[in-house]
Amino acid sequence: MVLERVKQLASHLTGHSGPPHPFDPLTEKEIEKAVAIVNSEHQGLFYNTVTLWEPRKVEMMAWLADPDHNVRPHRVADVVAIGRGSKVYDGLVDLEEEKIVRWELTEGVQPLITMEDLQIVETVVRKDPGVIEQCRLIGIPPGDMHKVYCDPWTIGYDERFGSKVRLQQALMYYRPHVDDSQYTYPLDFCPIFNADTQEIVHIDVPKVRRPLNQAPPTNYHAEAIKANGGYRTDLKPINITQPEGVSFTVEGRILKWQNWSVHVGFNHREGIVLSNITYNDKGNVRPVFYRISLAEMVVPYGNPEHPHQRKHAFDLGEYGGGYMTNSLALGCDCKGAIHYMDAAFVNRAGESQIIKNAICVHEEDAGILFKHTDFRDDSCTVTRARKLVVSHVFTAANYEYCVYWILHQDGTIQLEVKLTGILNTYSLNPGESAGPWGTEVYPGVNAHNHQHLFCLRLDPNIDGSANTVFVADAAASDAPLGSAENKYGNAFYAKKTKLETQAGSVSDYDGSTSRTWDMANTNKMNVYSHKPVSYKLVSREVPSLLPKEGSLVWKRAGFARHAVHVTKYNDDQIHPAGRHVPQTSGDPSQGLPAWIAADPDANIDNTDIVLWHTFGLTHFPAPEDYPVMPAEPMIVLLRPRNFFTQNPAMDVPPSYSSTPSQVAAGKRGLSGVIDGMSRLAFGGGREKGGSLDQEV
Amino acid sequence: MVLERVKQLASHLTGHSGPPHPFDPLTEKEIEKAVAIVNSEHQGLFYNTVTLWEPRKVEMMAWLADPDHNVRPHRVADVVAIGRGSKVYDGLVDLEEEKIVRWELTEGVQPLITMEDLQIVETVVRKDPGVIEQCRLIGIPPGDMHKVYCDPWTIGYDERFGSKVRLQQALMYYRPHVDDSQYTYPLDFCPIFNADTQEIVHIDVPKVRRPLNQAPPTNYHAEAIKANGGYRTDLKPINITQPEGVSFTVEGRILKWQNWSVHVGFNHREGIVLSNITYNDKGNVRPVFYRISLAEMVVPYGNPEHPHQRKHAFDLGEYGGGYMTNSLALGCDCKGAIHYMDAAFVNRAGESQIIKNAICVHEEDAGILFKHTDFRDDSCTVTRARKLVVSHVFTAANYEYCVYWILHQDGTIQLEVKLTGILNTYSLNPGESAGPWGTEVYPGVNAHNHQHLFCLRLDPNIDGSANTVFVADAAASDAPLGSAENKYGNAFYAKKTKLETQAGSVSDYDGSTSRTWDMANTNKMNVYSHKPVSYKLVSREVPSLLPKEGSLVWKRAGFARHAVHVTKYNDDQIHPAGRHVPQTSGDPSQGLPAWIAADPDANIDNTDIVLWHTFGLTHFPAPEDYPVMPAEPMIVLLRPRNFFTQNPAMDVPPSYSSTPSQVAAGKRGLSGVIDGMSRLAFGGGREKGGSLDQEV
Repeated sequence: MVLERVKQLASHLTGHSGPPHPFDPLTEKEIEKAVAIVNSEHQGLFYNTVTLWEPRKVEMMAWLADPDHNVRPHRVADVVAIGRGSKVYDGLVDLEEEKIVRWELTEGVQPLITMEDLQIVETVVRKDPGVIEQCRLIGIPPGDMHKVYCDPWTIGYDERFGSKVRLQQALMYYRPHVDDSQYTYPLDFCPIFNADTQEIVHIDVPKVRRPLNQAPPTNYHAEAIKANGGYRTDLKPINITQPEGVSFTVEGRILKWQNWSVHVGFNHREGIVLSNITYNDKGNVRPVFYRISLAEMVVPYGNPEHPHQRKHAFDLGEYGGGYMTNSLALGCDCKGAIHYMDAAFVNRAGESQIIKNAICVHEEDAGILFKHTDFRDDSCTVTRARKLVVSHVFTAANYEYCVYWILHQDGTIQLEVKLTGILNTYSLNPGESAGPWGTEVYPGVNAHNHQHLFCLRLDPNIDGSANTVFVADAAASDAPLGSAENKYGNAFYAKKTKLETQAGSVSDYDGSTSRTWDMANTNKMNVYSHKPVSYKLVSREVPSLLPKEGSLVWKRAGFARHAVHVTKYNDDQIHPAGRHVPQTSGDPSQGLPAWIAADPDANIDNTDIVLWHTFGLTHFPAPEDYPVMPAEPMIVLLRPRNFFTQNPAMDVPPSYSSTPSQVAAGKRGLSGVIDGMSRLAFGGGREKGGSLDQEV
Repeated sequence: MVLERVKQLASHLTGHSGPPHPFDPLTEKEIEKAVAIVNSEHQGLFYNTVTLWEPRKVEMMAWLADPDHNVRPHRVADVVAIGRGSKVYDGLVDLEEEKIVRWELTEGVQPLITMEDLQIVETVVRKDPGVIEQCRLIGIPPGDMHKVYCDPWTIGYDERFGSKVRLQQALMYYRPHVDDSQYTYPLDFCPIFNADTQEIVHIDVPKVRRPLNQAPPTNYHAEAIKANGGYRTDLKPINITQPEGVSFTVEGRILKWQNWSVHVGFNHREGIVLSNITYNDKGNVRPVFYRISLAEMVVPYGNPEHPHQRKHAFDLGEYGGGYMTNSLALGCDCKGAIHYMDAAFVNRAGESQIIKNAICVHEEDAGILFKHTDFRDDSCTVTRARKLVVSHVFTAANYEYCVYWILHQDGTIQLEVKLTGILNTYSLNPGESAGPWGTEVYPGVNAHNHQHLFCLRLDPNIDGSANTVFVADAAASDAPLGSAENKYGNAFYAKKTKLETQAGSVSDYDGSTSRTWDMANTNKMNVYSHKPVSYKLVSREVPSLLPKEGSLVWKRAGFARHAVHVTKYNDDQIHPAGRHVPQTSGDPSQGLPAWIAADPDANIDNTDIVLWHTFGLTHFPAPEDYPVMPAEPMIVLLRPRNFFTQNPAMDVPPSYSSTPSQVAAGKRGLSGVIDGMSRLAFGGGREKGGSLDQEV
């Protein structure tokens, strides 16, 4: 009977009837069912996570191959709960057998900090006598404590406190008025909060004190702009409409568009997860990736003064990109014809909660897809591109990450991340220099240097799960200039180096060779090029990890030491900095370094593998990033190479196409297939081209 | 009287009355006037180039500073003409004084190859007995010579023929049917054409012969797609409209948009030239760049077999990105509300000719400009971005380059280049391997490895012409982990290295330090950050030049040896591979290496400078690039850093903005300013957000 209700709710959430797809996130009812089953055996818990325990790959691959006959993987909930005394329990609940199949007290770890965990701290801080005293010392009277705010972060790791007590550090701010940006008024001290006892257990106070900033507020909200000259009035609307509807379909959470099929999952931690990505190549449905996601990230700050070394947030592993996801609004975050998907999570009390419009799915025009003109006769084909964007936006305290997973018609998969929001700031005395570890972005406001390093988890399935990774470097021929093999010195080629073992897979970026990594199926050759079918990882924003070898960040964020690691597939290896990240010391390093060290010689050639790619950027702030930062985009491409036997998008209807014989005969070609709405900017008319009749 | 006609025509072309702006390209009448003046003194010439001789910078800066009182620079035509015997004349004609002010016979050079020069060769080739014999040897009967085609290239440089005779090499192809892509049928030999005598003077024949490809045609034009399964039918239209008009204005060729002002020039060689770029910073019109353009490019191919070393086209210097520019069509190349500009050039006979719609100007929505949500209360501001795109597309024989100059609201200038068109191909025998220097992209079709290396010429004017370039590298602190200065090892900073002399400016890209180059005005500090106002060159696709040191390409394309060169400004230094590029030997190297060698110690610190940036990509072809290549984009950014005192786009009307106090009071914030047209993909409804009243 419970199962019946689960099915009904799943139907409501996914827009189709029948049981949830095995990759579907847990529904509200499934979450509540899992909690009910746990509560029936264990009391006094508050809930940290109730999320889908994804099907084991071998079962899932079998089911995907023949869903009508093979066993459907059970729905299983992955539960993290916290009891009194910071006791952490990891459990699995089989929702179909309605029982707990694993329940463990896990010592010495701290699960991620939820939004509810965060919300509590500010209230405690405002009432703490020590905090009130510190505020007074820097110029905030006790009567103004309602103007004091904090962004509670996990403590990261602090050797004085270790991992056994659940802690947060409170980055302190002040607002002259409730609508003022607090980031202009950072306070110079840092209270430490015990989440178990809900009290302040320590306050880090710097040697040099920095009284409250006396600069006037600087704000970007509408009231502030209107009071300061108003909005510019010279921006005319651009309307984007799809009067005949969208070109994609959604069945449950399976999205189909332009030969692509992909299951759109979502969890509290990684946010969007794309699974079972296939491409219909002229009727042949070819697997491309089993699963891709942003699996982790770390944001180390570059100021060496205590306690800023603790500022290196793992925004996914310590807070959760899903938990922090925005509810999106039509015409604001996304424009055009939009399909939204909601996200269901557990709360502290064990109830399910919904973030409405957590995921946005929409199409965009993408400019010229291909074009060629014959210079002899002006015969020409020009075809416009379309892209499909699956996106979410999450807010990590001061900062915003906009994550766009993009499918292209040419077979490319693109990840774009836009960074926006507000810089993390610290106080600066008048006349004090912010350099070299930061920038004074506004009087009295020091924005520290930082890096954003993301870890992309790629589980390739290039025409099957037996895959191999090659490092590809653009290289000049070894033969010297003037030699018989290279008389004119112009010979160059793509040097491919096969990665054969886990330890041997660790590789860095090389901009000088335009290094890429090929995920290939060496069992299947392209019939034309005789090269293995592959997808190429093309990524150009790949900074080195700047915290030094042996440093706290280096130890905790082992994944970020190198651009690429490759591991043999293991169902339990999803989180490259470990399953529970807060308060890990990095002694020993969790996640990727541990997995590789455990089996350095594990074969990764022609087997089921996972490629982990760290990319990102180093941000040296400037005043133009303040008080709100214009979005800075970054992209990673997964490009088919030797995968198709020809350009797979040639059957996209062109805007215009004529042949030499049509030109010679004075006939017009095929035109106006896509767009008849474009107009001249001035004078209002149309030109020849778009106004011609459609011939398709 | 002649001048009167010039003014009338200028008015027709530029859409305003009055004399042309000194940066305006020559009008049709100005071209014809220049030719008339030359013809009155010199006969028997055919014309290669009649283009604007740009005003000397010192005169132009003075005029720009006070156009009402200072002397307006004269309109001067830069003329290149060719006489019998491959004699080359370089001349200047002052159109206001109506006289030739310079006329020189230039020995040992060859000016670029025009489209008319190219068109002649195919006819000659088809009738040449030697070519007919070579065709017969590889399987094309003499009766089928009308099916033989060629892409005539400059010869580049061939030591057997030198520079004195004007030569082209004919890359040979065959079409079974006039509408078939010839690139599937490359012929294995290469005739050499003398442009003076208009005859074939030599044929390069390979040792190993490769008979005509027997594979069936592969085409992408409409007739071929319709015959091969037809077009996909699941793509619904996306309409992009601006019912209230565009947000930019055009006066003559001065484009104003969102605080930007820029003069849009165009010439036969560089294509689009953007001059006198300024940003209106709250009423203060601040100069940013005096002039930016794509100044040169080279496309070296990596197959060492003779005569493929000659395949390294300088598409701008040897053919002209303006001369090869497409006439654009509404709704095809650009979508929305479009403003076009035409381009006027001289032809061989000295008449003026127009390419209609050579330049496209239009706006595009650009996603989220900035966003922040307060996690405490969900107060939120989200603002969408707009960009302005000035673009042209040029066809270099088989290949297309789509060039987009993009202005952003946050002060960023972006260059995007999309590569599309058709791969250059060579023949391959059955069973022969294309590797490692190429890829068999279709049976019998060998697409050679190649690089596209572009040279971006940046003439900064960052709050004045006295500028300085710094190399900026992300660097860990020198202080060791555990030291007092860097106890936790997390310290890092932007290491800046000032470039002081021309020779000392030569620098390479370093991906591991995310290297950028700052163009700064060290005389003006940002009042908040105390750092010099600057624009940062951010470029991530910067491959090494793969032809070896001392090779033909290395010698001829000196600019491509390094990512950045900086020179002291010189009016005559526009073309980094030299003024006349075809048939240069590279002994000595022209352009950048020569200028720097002539004055290696020239000061470039705090003076008028030019930064030359080489970027691009290395292309190892794959079957998905054939028979027409999906567009591959590349971008370069010029970003304001410490230039503004705050985010300059905060007054862009938001999509939504609410303050904490509005949220607390249950009031809705400012919303729906920009877009009320977005809709849900399924069900047709709207959600809250976009449907709220506009309050601005």
